[in-house]
Amino acid sequence: MGRWEPNARGRLARAALVLSAEHGYESTTVAEIAAAAGVTERTFYRHFTDKADALFPDHDVLLERLADVARQAADDGASVLDAALAAIGDLATMAAAEPERAALSARVVPTVPALAGRELVRQRAIADAVSGALTERGVRAREARLAAETALGVWRVAVAEWVDAPDGRTLPEVVAAAAEAVRAL
Amino acid sequence: MGRWEPNARGRLARAALVLSAEHGYESTTVAEIAAAAGVTERTFYRHFTDKADALFPDHDVLLERLADVARQAADDGASVLDAALAAIGDLATMAAAEPERAALSARVVPTVPALAGRELVRQRAIADAVSGALTERGVRAREARLAAETALGVWRVAVAEWVDAPDGRTLPEVVAAAAEAVRAL
Repeated sequence: MGRWEPNARGRLARAALVLSAEHGYESTTVAEIAAAAGVTERTFYRHFTDKADALFPDHDVLLERLADVARQAADDGASVLDAALAAIGDLATMAAAEPERAALSARVVPTVPALAGRELVRQRAIADAVSGALTERGVRAREARLAAETALGVWRVAVAEWVDAPDGRTLPEVVAAAAEAVRAL
Repeated sequence: MGRWEPNARGRLARAALVLSAEHGYESTTVAEIAAAAGVTERTFYRHFTDKADALFPDHDVLLERLADVARQAADDGASVLDAALAAIGDLATMAAAEPERAALSARVVPTVPALAGRELVRQRAIADAVSGALTERGVRAREARLAAETALGVWRVAVAEWVDAPDGRTLPEVVAAAAEAVRAL
């Protein structure tokens, strides 16, 4: 994911999220985001194609990293489900490195249909990356997809639980607890 | 879900899907859909708010039915996961009653970002309905949500498998096989 600060790209992503949380996504303009990040609109468009794009930065890097984690876990002898859950655990670790961003994003995204749709598409891409990595390691397509889908379900349940009931637990802790619960289902 | 034919609502839903499959969703107009269904545009708008709406009919009825199935399975002593899977099995049975519609929908929806997003939102609503039904039966929120998410994962994997490799198996059969595989993960 890279550092959120102090580079222009990171500042723009942060400004897009903070302004959307404060004033609403629809009424926040690219001009306002650029101004808050201390750059020009032109600089904004060098980094992002549109406003929504700024709320979902670093997508490809993320997918590659999660695939790596799943492959590594499979190589280390993890079960198919545990390898997929390892990738989701890593996703939680990355999110926890920027807890303000994770919390704002989890609050803003579900309230805006366009962003909610995009977040779900992002989750599809993560499921594809993780199941693709597992099939590379010889897992059958159906099992790889089911494991990736189940792990993404753990992610959604854990994020919602973490946002709704902030009881001091970190996101990785909540994800680990949800992963344990899904194994027990 | 109701019958797809011969009522106006059903004919409109069918026309929206068939024309989108044949000519592309974006280039299909409401006027063309209405004409193909033998009704006026005004009649179209009595049944649906827009073109996308016509591709996702009978949403609330569906949610209530799936919740009923999950509650009934829980009352019959099914495990949390099996109760959620029973709802998804019922979803497959309903889709299989209109196989042409199911196959066209599975082919058209993923190729149009706006429809793909809407389908994922629909799946969120199904997950909410099923997990809500399970919590009504005393299941803890986390377990109910995880079971619903896992069952929806089974649904996505099974539909993709059914569309990609039509080997004569019915959708309920593929869903049952995927449900078996997720239990074994």
